[in-house]
Amino acid sequence: MATIVDVEIDPTALIAALGRHARIAAGALGRLSTADKRRGLIAMARAIRGAEAAILAANAIDMANAEKAGLSSAMLDRLNLTPDRVAAMADGVATIATLKDPVGETIDETVPANGIHLSRVRVPIGVIGIIYESRPNVTADAAALCIGSGNAVILRGGSEAVESNRAIHAALVEGLKDAGLPAEAVQLVPTTDRAAVGAMLAGEGVIDMVVPRGGKGLVARVQAEARVPVLAHLDGINHVFVHASADPAMAETIVVNAKMRRTGICGAMETLLIDRDYPRAADLIAALAATGCEVRGDDAARALAPDIAPAAKSDWDTEYLEAIASVAIVDGLDGALAHIARHGSHHTDAIVAEDATVAERFLGEVDSAIVLWNASTQFADGGEFGLGAEIGIATGRLHARGPVALEGLTTYKWIGRGTGQVRA
Amino acid sequence: MATIVDVEIDPTALIAALGRHARIAAGALGRLSTADKRRGLIAMARAIRGAEAAILAANAIDMANAEKAGLSSAMLDRLNLTPDRVAAMADGVATIATLKDPVGETIDETVPANGIHLSRVRVPIGVIGIIYESRPNVTADAAALCIGSGNAVILRGGSEAVESNRAIHAALVEGLKDAGLPAEAVQLVPTTDRAAVGAMLAGEGVIDMVVPRGGKGLVARVQAEARVPVLAHLDGINHVFVHASADPAMAETIVVNAKMRRTGICGAMETLLIDRDYPRAADLIAALAATGCEVRGDDAARALAPDIAPAAKSDWDTEYLEAIASVAIVDGLDGALAHIARHGSHHTDAIVAEDATVAERFLGEVDSAIVLWNASTQFADGGEFGLGAEIGIATGRLHARGPVALEGLTTYKWIGRGTGQVRA
Repeated sequence: MATIVDVEIDPTALIAALGRHARIAAGALGRLSTADKRRGLIAMARAIRGAEAAILAANAIDMANAEKAGLSSAMLDRLNLTPDRVAAMADGVATIATLKDPVGETIDETVPANGIHLSRVRVPIGVIGIIYESRPNVTADAAALCIGSGNAVILRGGSEAVESNRAIHAALVEGLKDAGLPAEAVQLVPTTDRAAVGAMLAGEGVIDMVVPRGGKGLVARVQAEARVPVLAHLDGINHVFVHASADPAMAETIVVNAKMRRTGICGAMETLLIDRDYPRAADLIAALAATGCEVRGDDAARALAPDIAPAAKSDWDTEYLEAIASVAIVDGLDGALAHIARHGSHHTDAIVAEDATVAERFLGEVDSAIVLWNASTQFADGGEFGLGAEIGIATGRLHARGPVALEGLTTYKWIGRGTGQVRA
Repeated sequence: MATIVDVEIDPTALIAALGRHARIAAGALGRLSTADKRRGLIAMARAIRGAEAAILAANAIDMANAEKAGLSSAMLDRLNLTPDRVAAMADGVATIATLKDPVGETIDETVPANGIHLSRVRVPIGVIGIIYESRPNVTADAAALCIGSGNAVILRGGSEAVESNRAIHAALVEGLKDAGLPAEAVQLVPTTDRAAVGAMLAGEGVIDMVVPRGGKGLVARVQAEARVPVLAHLDGINHVFVHASADPAMAETIVVNAKMRRTGICGAMETLLIDRDYPRAADLIAALAATGCEVRGDDAARALAPDIAPAAKSDWDTEYLEAIASVAIVDGLDGALAHIARHGSHHTDAIVAEDATVAERFLGEVDSAIVLWNASTQFADGGEFGLGAEIGIATGRLHARGPVALEGLTTYKWIGRGTGQVRA
């Protein structure tokens, strides 16, 4: 198998050329029926299954190179494909074919005084750029979500997964062709030159929206450089606030789950806020510590639980993504709201309370993409939200927020049907 | 009356300080009931009426300075306020109080398998920046739309309207205070230093969305420099396509209205596309020319109407905003679609046709924020669309498109109400 060759090509010209093809494909995709898109997705899933051997062989090259380069075991695990993982990738693509197609949906209709029948109808955004790191399954996931929502996609994967991505992309294109869909609907940037990422981020008019998928470094770079809209979250500094009225058993279960179920996901709790009037604070901190979590508290928390470490000022602004939590004692709901307003990252915050008035104020006033009452922050996930999948979780304030799947990859147009109206 | 003094202050620090106050005010506004916001708007309208003398006196200073500076009569007219115009400004603010409040609206609800009751609820965006030119009524219009949708606003008007804007802003603040709303909800940048605009455009985390209101130069600068999302349109290169099946009387009425009702608005037709098979093309061109419109045609159009001027290549990409139109003869629907895809600006495009199949293809395939069938492009307006007002018309692909009023100034959050769920 040939390894990729970085030919000398101006990255702006390269991305512009990919974009021109993608724009034409997007025009065709936007006109497809739901049945056509589903046929395409099913063919893409079938092609991945059929290319299992090629994909695994390509992945073996990436794995060998990655081992030589001394990548961490966590990175090697993210990169590694197995027959099961290839099957799961194909299943994921096929699943998108079962989701509700948002394109063509009428958002609302009105007939204003001028008598023109107006409707707002969902349409695809156009050309989506995906910039991602080592997980090769993103190649299939992201492509499927874009095709399912009628968008063309330009994929730019990590250099360590280049062979795997090429093999998966080849299968996806084969599936598109089998179904009679334009092959240019899913394009893979054919160079690992980092300047190509810059060209994608600068691609106004070429790429309509960029979705970064990967670590904080990648997301921060994309947000800093992008001249096109970005759908992303940088941090998940998520809080669970245990109110005085909380059921102690529920509080313990939710706090332990929110922190410890999986510590590395963006929906994990990082800071526990306990109401000064909550009577079982010491027990709650002890229960969290007993799971193996390192707990770092403020003075009031350490007065209740002297064994925990002191929290530094920076702890309140830290996304640990590991078995560490900060704990602060706050003055009721207002103390919790003030802490979250100051330190939160607008991702996911939860309250545990039996008092519905307090809970509703929390849900209303916490300015985050996802706010939860009596449920673990670990539910922040498109699958758990009934979306069937997700292209990512967004903490920006415009367009789509929280878990984003097919609908978030659409926009709308106004359609007016008249009978000869002219404006007075 | 004192004229504004440009004190030496770092524009970034200035905008950050305004933004901090605005962010706090936005928090308070986000929690207001519809009734409270309406009370605020009505008080703002009353305060404008009460300040009529002060506003007119301030405007007289701006007008005198503008005349001294030799501004064009069109610019002087935009700047000029009269008792009628002040009353219209107050009425406009009061009208916003009658519109449906989008904040708090449940977009959809679902209870996925985990049993958490999920709803998506509209919330204000936060802090909106408005950058505008000579019309002082934008100060009141934009502030009212932002308050009506629960957003704080930072206003940056043109230097030629500085005294008028200050007087209107003072009235708006008085109204806010009268109604018990935070005065910092509507802020006016207290300097005409152009660097303040740059600081607003760079204000990530300070300003959530910028709306430029003014000429193409302003919009282009804002789009080029902004690091925050921009809601705007640059061009309105709008087309009317007259299909072979069009009713000739309707075609003539719509084409003349679309071009000539008001030539200077963004919804005006700039290019007329006539189907080669439309039998009355010569009459249509003659009718348009007879209104005093300068018509510039391609060779095929000139073969039908030899008196018209030849169109240059640049004509197809020109927004005249005056009594000039370009005319091209195209090969049916596909020719029209290709022309619009190449030269359109995604604003408003219309088809005149009796053939519903052709019309529906046009509505589906033209990639513009507004597409119309048998109606004049001059209807591109929030008031005509039943929105009651508009903050602007957007041709971007994300968030809101077409005429944008209160709903386009909101986003949503996910609210989950559980009963102790933790994730498996």
